Amino acid sequence: MGLMETTNKPHDRLAAWLAEDMASVNGLIRERMASEHAPRIPEVTAHLVEAGGKRLRPMMTLAAARLCGYDGPYHVHLAATVEFIHTATLLHDDVVDESAQRRGRPTANLLWDNKSSVLVGDYLFARSFQLMVETGSLRVLDILANASATIAEGEVLQLSAAQDLATDEDIYLKVVRGKTAALFAAATEVGGVIAAAAPEQIAALHRYGDALGIAFQIVDDLLDYGGTTQVIGKNVGDDFRERKLTLPVIKAVAAADEEERAFWSRVIEKGDQREGDLERAMELMARHGTLAATRDAALGWAAQAKSALELLPAHELRDMLRDLADYVVERVA
Amino acid sequence: MGLMETTNKPHDRLAAWLAEDMASVNGLIRERMASEHAPRIPEVTAHLVEAGGKRLRPMMTLAAARLCGYDGPYHVHLAATVEFIHTATLLHDDVVDESAQRRGRPTANLLWDNKSSVLVGDYLFARSFQLMVETGSLRVLDILANASATIAEGEVLQLSAAQDLATDEDIYLKVVRGKTAALFAAATEVGGVIAAAAPEQIAALHRYGDALGIAFQIVDDLLDYGGTTQVIGKNVGDDFRERKLTLPVIKAVAAADEEERAFWSRVIEKGDQREGDLERAMELMARHGTLAATRDAALGWAAQAKSALELLPAHELRDMLRDLADYVVERVA
Repeated sequence: MGLMETTNKPHDRLAAWLAEDMASVNGLIRERMASEHAPRIPEVTAHLVEAGGKRLRPMMTLAAARLCGYDGPYHVHLAATVEFIHTATLLHDDVVDESAQRRGRPTANLLWDNKSSVLVGDYLFARSFQLMVETGSLRVLDILANASATIAEGEVLQLSAAQDLATDEDIYLKVVRGKTAALFAAATEVGGVIAAAAPEQIAALHRYGDALGIAFQIVDDLLDYGGTTQVIGKNVGDDFRERKLTLPVIKAVAAADEEERAFWSRVIEKGDQREGDLERAMELMARHGTLAATRDAALGWAAQAKSALELLPAHELRDMLRDLADYVVERVA
Repeated sequence: MGLMETTNKPHDRLAAWLAEDMASVNGLIRERMASEHAPRIPEVTAHLVEAGGKRLRPMMTLAAARLCGYDGPYHVHLAATVEFIHTATLLHDDVVDESAQRRGRPTANLLWDNKSSVLVGDYLFARSFQLMVETGSLRVLDILANASATIAEGEVLQLSAAQDLATDEDIYLKVVRGKTAALFAAATEVGGVIAAAAPEQIAALHRYGDALGIAFQIVDDLLDYGGTTQVIGKNVGDDFRERKLTLPVIKAVAAADEEERAFWSRVIEKGDQREGDLERAMELMARHGTLAATRDAALGWAAQAKSALELLPAHELRDMLRDLADYVVERVA
């Protein structure tokens, strides 16, 4: 497993260090995605799986297992499991969000249809379930079952929270754990479990994934009000137009006077959005410093992620995971 | 567990014999359906779970475990698991089929929306997964993971097979296993596994559930061309209008001359259906005796189900399962 220092991005360094493992993961994904009876399945999944996603989640599983000294075959199964769950979630999310773009391509449900997105997502969930059973670890199954429940609960909670000004930072955090952090946390935790790491190290891996996932999502929400289309592959203000209560807005609502609250109620709760409303929202967030406060929150979670890593063995991979936490928030730092 | 002989219907006799166990199952279902954070979840599921479904699948798990002498607590978990998987499948199927009625009530996606149906279905899948992990049996997890994959694969296969005259009886059988028989077979098999029954008995339970499920689905397809709205809670000819290639049609297509084939191609493949086409389809099926041949197929599968039971211990519950196989086909015998 050669270390290619051609780039400084921690994600690329992880990919180089884990190249052999990732090749096995990709092979397993292609093998298990196939369906003898239903050729539509690989047609739909190939679109997502080959779409050049960063494969961040499976790499986190591999890195966690390797840095805890794992030398068996099952980290590959678990990495493929995590990627399948992630892809299934994207497919089901596409049915839900009617988002026009994902990873810069048309979403599966525009190329195909809602039926295929739902059922192929279910197929990937079932395949991921088979893969984890093959590891023979009930502990791993328990962790991933709990993560699955947290993910689904968070997604449902997001439905009701999306356009309700009563959504506070506690609810936001539950939604974010469901959307992102629960799978990140499970991805790193099962890596430690399969490596039979010490309990406090497994707990630290969970905390790392959880905090990194939250930082990641907060940055994503923040970039929606400040990034560029090239950088994030989606349009600025998408969340605003979809009336999502993300952290910068929640903080602005909490600080709002009566007149500002009426504005938020109109554009978010009632969905009555007019020319200039996005600009007005940006101005209110600037006035109350909520973009800066949101950035500070992201930096705080990244710091927690790094601090969790201190309990893990000194290792090149640990350094890359630490740098990854910095990198995630670098876009907004 | 009192035996109430107030009815001759095997389903009611099973319900009476298993009343205490079913009360535990219903309690567990209500407990696990609840979500602290997302109150919409029980709102959606209660609609389905309380809708007066027959709870046939969980009863089959309980019956299999009990007749193999099981005396522990986990058959209740497995029965709830099976009902959760079934309910999740219905929710996802509602998104897919746009069927206007299920169990005589509006479907969840008319009362709620596609988003809720997809995500609450996912939540129930995750909850079922947690329940089976609690049994601590990797073998049970393996069986249910494989059943989940067969179900999802069959549903996707059904999408492509639905309007394609090339769909033959082999493909039909794969679709039916996905739609119905895989979960029936897993439901009875895990009952035997949790009871630590002998391998040939576990295999027999699988065969029983598989054959019963196939018989059940064939009867359902047949009634769609001959039952009444009161009996089956859906309209005669629904499958025809939805251009489904069910067994009576597949057999009629196989026996069609050139002119008949053109008819089937127009109404099923091209979806160009006109006044009188349903009557014409019925006439063609009568001419080739495909309704009678379909009935014979159902009776054959019911006989296979009964024959599998011979390997199981003599037991009141075994008699009820045998009578259940007769009862399933009685509607068309």
